[in-house]
Amino acid sequence: MRTKGEFIESLRDKRKVYYRGKLVDVTVHPTLRVAVKHASKLFEYGERISEGRVSKFFTVPRNSRDLLDRHELIYGLTMYCNGVFNISQAIGTDALFALMVATRKLDREVGTDYFKRLSSYFDYVSRNDLTMATAQTDVKGNRSKRPGDQEDPDMYLRVTEVNEKGIRVRGAKAHTTQGAVSNEIIVIPTRAMREGEGEYSIAFAVPADAEGLKMYVRPIDELEGNSSSVLSREDYELETLTVFQDVFVPWDRVFLFKETKYSGIVASLFATFHRFTAVSYRIATSNLFLGASRLMALANGILNEKQVRDEIVDIVMYKEVMKATAIAAAMNPIVDEEVAIPNPTFTNVGKLYSNAHFHDIVRDLIDISGGIISTMPSEEDLSSPEGEVISKYLRGAVDGKERVKLLKIAKELGSSHLTGYLLTLMVHAEGSMEASKIELSRSYNYKDAEDLVRRLTEQEG
Amino acid sequence: MRTKGEFIESLRDKRKVYYRGKLVDVTVHPTLRVAVKHASKLFEYGERISEGRVSKFFTVPRNSRDLLDRHELIYGLTMYCNGVFNISQAIGTDALFALMVATRKLDREVGTDYFKRLSSYFDYVSRNDLTMATAQTDVKGNRSKRPGDQEDPDMYLRVTEVNEKGIRVRGAKAHTTQGAVSNEIIVIPTRAMREGEGEYSIAFAVPADAEGLKMYVRPIDELEGNSSSVLSREDYELETLTVFQDVFVPWDRVFLFKETKYSGIVASLFATFHRFTAVSYRIATSNLFLGASRLMALANGILNEKQVRDEIVDIVMYKEVMKATAIAAAMNPIVDEEVAIPNPTFTNVGKLYSNAHFHDIVRDLIDISGGIISTMPSEEDLSSPEGEVISKYLRGAVDGKERVKLLKIAKELGSSHLTGYLLTLMVHAEGSMEASKIELSRSYNYKDAEDLVRRLTEQEG
Amino acid sequence: MRTKGEFIESLRDKRKVYYRGKLVDVTVHPTLRVAVKHASKLFEYGERISEGRVSKFFTVPRNSRDLLDRHELIYGLTMYCNGVFNISQAIGTDALFALMVATRKLDREVGTDYFKRLSSYFDYVSRNDLTMATAQTDVKGNRSKRPGDQEDPDMYLRVTEVNEKGIRVRGAKAHTTQGAVSNEIIVIPTRAMREGEGEYSIAFAVPADAEGLKMYVRPIDELEGNSSSVLSREDYELETLTVFQDVFVPWDRVFLFKETKYSGIVASLFATFHRFTAVSYRIATSNLFLGASRLMALANGILNEKQVRDEIVDIVMYKEVMKATAIAAAMNPIVDEEVAIPNPTFTNVGKLYSNAHFHDIVRDLIDISGGIISTMPSEEDLSSPEGEVISKYLRGAVDGKERVKLLKIAKELGSSHLTGYLLTLMVHAEGSMEASKIELSRSYNYKDAEDLVRRLTEQEG
Amino acid sequence: MRTKGEFIESLRDKRKVYYRGKLVDVTVHPTLRVAVKHASKLFEYGERISEGRVSKFFTVPRNSRDLLDRHELIYGLTMYCNGVFNISQAIGTDALFALMVATRKLDREVGTDYFKRLSSYFDYVSRNDLTMATAQTDVKGNRSKRPGDQEDPDMYLRVTEVNEKGIRVRGAKAHTTQGAVSNEIIVIPTRAMREGEGEYSIAFAVPADAEGLKMYVRPIDELEGNSSSVLSREDYELETLTVFQDVFVPWDRVFLFKETKYSGIVASLFATFHRFTAVSYRIATSNLFLGASRLMALANGILNEKQVRDEIVDIVMYKEVMKATAIAAAMNPIVDEEVAIPNPTFTNVGKLYSNAHFHDIVRDLIDISGGIISTMPSEEDLSSPEGEVISKYLRGAVDGKERVKLLKIAKELGSSHLTGYLLTLMVHAEGSMEASKIELSRSYNYKDAEDLVRRLTEQEG
Repeated sequence: MRTKGEFIESLRDKRKVYYRGKLVDVTVHPTLRVAVKHASKLFEYGERISEGRVSKFFTVPRNSRDLLDRHELIYGLTMYCNGVFNISQAIGTDALFALMVATRKLDREVGTDYFKRLSSYFDYVSRNDLTMATAQTDVKGNRSKRPGDQEDPDMYLRVTEVNEKGIRVRGAKAHTTQGAVSNEIIVIPTRAMREGEGEYSIAFAVPADAEGLKMYVRPIDELEGNSSSVLSREDYELETLTVFQDVFVPWDRVFLFKETKYSGIVASLFATFHRFTAVSYRIATSNLFLGASRLMALANGILNEKQVRDEIVDIVMYKEVMKATAIAAAMNPIVDEEVAIPNPTFTNVGKLYSNAHFHDIVRDLIDISGGIISTMPSEEDLSSPEGEVISKYLRGAVDGKERVKLLKIAKELGSSHLTGYLLTLMVHAEGSMEASKIELSRSYNYKDAEDLVRRLTEQEG
Repeated sequence: MRTKGEFIESLRDKRKVYYRGKLVDVTVHPTLRVAVKHASKLFEYGERISEGRVSKFFTVPRNSRDLLDRHELIYGLTMYCNGVFNISQAIGTDALFALMVATRKLDREVGTDYFKRLSSYFDYVSRNDLTMATAQTDVKGNRSKRPGDQEDPDMYLRVTEVNEKGIRVRGAKAHTTQGAVSNEIIVIPTRAMREGEGEYSIAFAVPADAEGLKMYVRPIDELEGNSSSVLSREDYELETLTVFQDVFVPWDRVFLFKETKYSGIVASLFATFHRFTAVSYRIATSNLFLGASRLMALANGILNEKQVRDEIVDIVMYKEVMKATAIAAAMNPIVDEEVAIPNPTFTNVGKLYSNAHFHDIVRDLIDISGGIISTMPSEEDLSSPEGEVISKYLRGAVDGKERVKLLKIAKELGSSHLTGYLLTLMVHAEGSMEASKIELSRSYNYKDAEDLVRRLTEQEG
Repeated sequence: MRTKGEFIESLRDKRKVYYRGKLVDVTVHPTLRVAVKHASKLFEYGERISEGRVSKFFTVPRNSRDLLDRHELIYGLTMYCNGVFNISQAIGTDALFALMVATRKLDREVGTDYFKRLSSYFDYVSRNDLTMATAQTDVKGNRSKRPGDQEDPDMYLRVTEVNEKGIRVRGAKAHTTQGAVSNEIIVIPTRAMREGEGEYSIAFAVPADAEGLKMYVRPIDELEGNSSSVLSREDYELETLTVFQDVFVPWDRVFLFKETKYSGIVASLFATFHRFTAVSYRIATSNLFLGASRLMALANGILNEKQVRDEIVDIVMYKEVMKATAIAAAMNPIVDEEVAIPNPTFTNVGKLYSNAHFHDIVRDLIDISGGIISTMPSEEDLSSPEGEVISKYLRGAVDGKERVKLLKIAKELGSSHLTGYLLTLMVHAEGSMEASKIELSRSYNYKDAEDLVRRLTEQEG
Repeated sequence: MRTKGEFIESLRDKRKVYYRGKLVDVTVHPTLRVAVKHASKLFEYGERISEGRVSKFFTVPRNSRDLLDRHELIYGLTMYCNGVFNISQAIGTDALFALMVATRKLDREVGTDYFKRLSSYFDYVSRNDLTMATAQTDVKGNRSKRPGDQEDPDMYLRVTEVNEKGIRVRGAKAHTTQGAVSNEIIVIPTRAMREGEGEYSIAFAVPADAEGLKMYVRPIDELEGNSSSVLSREDYELETLTVFQDVFVPWDRVFLFKETKYSGIVASLFATFHRFTAVSYRIATSNLFLGASRLMALANGILNEKQVRDEIVDIVMYKEVMKATAIAAAMNPIVDEEVAIPNPTFTNVGKLYSNAHFHDIVRDLIDISGGIISTMPSEEDLSSPEGEVISKYLRGAVDGKERVKLLKIAKELGSSHLTGYLLTLMVHAEGSMEASKIELSRSYNYKDAEDLVRRLTEQEG
């Protein structure tokens, strides 16, 4: 297996990563190297290695047990990373599993050999223990127009040249999580495409330092802009706007092209795998809010207040509804093309609950912690000579220094840049609420329910 | 196995059932015989019989598989009964399983032989395929006072006499579901008792026609007071105020007495088994709302409206969160005294969600169906000569007669006595929201969450 | 002023009212006469008479003070009627005020004389102190089709004949509140009409006993089907399916015909007046839930429990948000054609809040009252010789007889036919939630908000 | 009237303000001078000056009109300050009005002359057009213990010395809004005090540069830690931990001492005035979310999507419920000691709604804006040579540069430090949700509701 050091070394390639207006080396940049460190924790996490000495992330799920294992692997690694999701091999395999199912169907229908190419690629990344980001969401331009009707034709990633060796692509993908610190970028369609949108119906993989690929990293304000941050100094995820300036992709890394019908199939299969992953890591993330709320309640001397109890129960509900749906999704998979797909209904139910209620648990933490998390003096004050008097006045049921440690975390989670970042993440990452509703509504099996009521109407006659 | 006819015949005993001020024979009373018919459907339901020719309800759960089977049995039988829970052997066995775990512990601690008595009784009811109601909730009087501090000492069921042959009990239990149409009444404590409350710490079983036992049935207004009802003519549950006027219980039917510590243990174990049952049957009940909403949307020509889609997704969420928690509770049991207890956290999460959101799905159905479900002319109008003109004007995307059939069901579910009854049931049956919150808050394992945050606070130093 | 007796006498005309399949005289029918009694309370309510000896309901609002007075009049009369809205002169005047504004505009644009006709009619009803129902909602058939595209052309009320003397109309209006016990029926369009839908663009008034008019009353199950009901024996509202079988309307009672553009204007103006009325009476209705919750909490000995306090605060919020919007709507009217129209934004905000949260206050009451409201023995049991033992066991912090009185009301409000009826009413009456959202979204003035943000974007440059 | 320049000059006194560990001059510090500029906008706002050439903030409300004027003044000034509340003379006068009512009562009861002292002070601040912060919330230590039971006796501000000239006070007040940039600090009790807590029952005023007074300003991360911020460069509020190290207060500035009963009265009266102020400014603040949501929807090309419409209606509801309660509170004041106090029920209803639902409108904005607000490249990227390609890909229904301007504001509001700060502010500022519930529950007049239900129970007999 690859070591942490080897992984970090592998990021010193020709990649074009921009941060705050400058081209940077992610492995040495004082802020971005935290994202590198976070990514590299994958290689420290012993639980991920299977008996066969392969990363368990590459275990293709065949049944409920495999899905439960994957669920626990993602939860476990997220806990290892302090509640922050480590995508290093998670989202990439979500995409690869989706492509496995889709390419098999496509090959059978059209007579192509995508599955073979994909299998080679799968073999390559797993054997070399590579990390992968997945770039799915096109920048989209005017959301009320189809790809081909945009004022600028590049609003959806598209093929600009086709030749014997491969294709050339142009466009941009938004929010590629950890793109800048991954080995590979797997690209899949953002949505179903229609007849005539073949140039947009593409899936492929490129190394992160492919020529013409540029990655613009979001500002990491939760670390740079919050001198009292604790969690973000250890773990955070970066996101990039990933621009493809006529990037060349050789045929053996192209997994879909032109077959518009399969764009939607890949997008939807990936969504299901990825939301299962999401529900799994969010359980770990919610531990941050649960733990901070409990400990703050204790530190404030209010753990026995009934409204505090209700708020803590609310966070427990949030966490456990997600967990229940993850388990149920694993227990009731759809097995298709020999791959066990997490049950889409349970997966989307968990995802939608998670989107819709995250802001409630933020409010719970805020209410328990007190307004002081937004008004407390800065880290610089606390470590200045004035720190003593400040600590004196920040005591609760525990002494001031102790409580300040908790307040810093409660602030980071509930009243800082990270709060805003997480709120947005929890609404948008892994698909919007609208997307989950569409999926739930469309794919749900209403038969039991409709039959029951129809049977009753007939009893009337 | 017992037949439906044998069961009905068995109810013609000395039981004292009062309905609307009169002593009645439940098997012939025009309204109450529907409750008998409903109860007797147990004996029609083929799925309930195990290979060993015993009712599967008596299978003591030993592992996840057994709990999943029980979950499916309850769902299946409820669906067979048109979405109305059939408690005939469900709640009784919930109580017996709870007593099994508790009596073993008690015997070991105190040296009693309750488990043996219980096993004999279990053998008796299962061998004879009897049906059982469970009477738990004391009438309670002033809720702010302990049992012994009540103005009238009978507000909690209590022992008034003890002799060689057994005990004599006095008091009343509220809302005994299907008590009047069951063979046996199993009685368990309503709550934890304290030192000095030994006379209230009792569990036992009596036949439904025991001397001194009186059952007062609630008015079945959903049938008698709604001439257009459909479902309630087929299936409903009755409830009784069950009064014990110095009823004698022989020692071999006494399963707990005086051991105050075990009152709470029995009450809490029963709550867990019973809420698992509740979540399982409510999934089936929610099918009524889901099916009626879908078919009404279709009949009104509004299935493609986005607010309708959102409301249907809301009902799907309601159903599937419960289902996910049932599956997760079965998959993560606590095995105690060789009995697999459904996971209390998932069970209570499902239960609390179910309590808190049922009224939302009622509103969803109402919004989709239209105000007409509360203002439509009566069944008598529809079957009078005026029926034609009324039907003409009640057409939607389907013809009037067809739509009226659905409107009657939508009205019964969303705008009738049954609505009020169900709303109350869904809030109170199987324990209040407050009870679930207390349980969730108290028994939850906060370790993962607190450790994570503690670990972070230490990183700071 | 007219007396109560005169009013009741006036209902003994040629009206065709059907109840449970039979043609009936509403003034003597044992059930329907309660609706008559309720309607007639208008004439007992001293506060309604102005100094000028006219019913204050006919005061055309010219300013905030007039609207506040109307708000208080409606609240006061509803309280006088035990929390049940008395529409006798309320909804009719809502319609007349809307027509006043619209006809003036229409006359000015088209050169018609509708306002004059309307003024004569207004004078006639006010001078004679008549009561009026308003019939607005067409039965609508397939909701996804326009009036002219329906399979049966009569799904929207339409003109079938025009001659020198007047028009003849055919169709049906759903849920005409108190139609069967009013003197006059005022008919207005259900929605905006388009070019070519002139035959559906009609507003007019007919006496309730007009030839060809048939009214089918909903079954009053809350009274007939609940032997323990208290409130419904005093006050309820009936609703009719009101069928127009080629009813003739003379020109002087026609207030709109053919002018499709004005259909929407009338419908929308009526909606605003009527929702202002709705918010006003619902404040009184919510007192039933607030009072019952408080008194039940007291009777159960749980008034000091925190969850009870939270639930009572929830009901207070419900009531007072409505009240605040009513006051704000009155204070910020739109004065148009000399008529003060309640502010549509505040009116719709109050209405939408009221629709969306009524089911919450029902749940609050249910949770406080306890499951006993759905399982308690019947009135017949309570008044039988068994009543004593039942009362013994129904005591709380107050004695059994006292608590039973409250339980009957709590049951009627929270766990009976009335509950289902009110839930539907509170969602649909005076327009659906969707209708309020459309109105709010469309008519809202976003200027302040958009200007502020635009100003900020310009500061950036 | 005082000028902006005079005001800024007046802040160059002996005040001890610490920021990020250093003693600073607020008028020149690059970050804090923005708070000075914000405070000074008061002096630019023409509407604030009354005919009598006094700031309208000092107009003691005597009736509804005065309260409506004050409501509009606060809204108007907040809008002038880009949606950010300007407390300069608002919170201070809230405290002074509360003290006016309380001191009159106290003087009458005890024979003191506090009202006279207060009047002189009121005259002094109004004549000199001073700005005032109000320090109320003690740091409180262990929330489950009374002031005198704390481990450190200084957890509630207390009197440590009394002599002929005045008193000396020690302790700390948390979150003093704009304390560091105000002329005066008015100090009032945080809560009701009990017998024996006289040393904690104090109200007084000191100049902001009083000896022994130290102010520790929270880090302004929304400006310093977000290089794309726009709003925070123009307007923000600072908060201080305000420490009193044996600060001397002469008697003529002491407005309450020892009279424990009046601590609660002052705290509660201030809460009412201040929540009325809060509801008024929050209407303006919500315009930021409303405007940004509308313009983002437009820029994304999704304004006509139904879920977008629903989210915008949700923000409108948020804003207009607050506005309606403000108007209703003004229209129904309690006039006490000649001062018109905003109606506490409406005020608390508005406040509680505002606390409970702010996080919903944040979610609405986030959902409409898209995940890009958390993942977009930084300001430094946008203004670097790479800016062009980034803008190309950030276009929507409008061009990239235009959309970026909006995205920056949407990010600032929905996905940045300001988001977390506002979420906390909206939950805690002006009192917690629990505080509003206690107040609502305690002071509500249940008479109408209880009488109605009692009347009904008597009709039964």
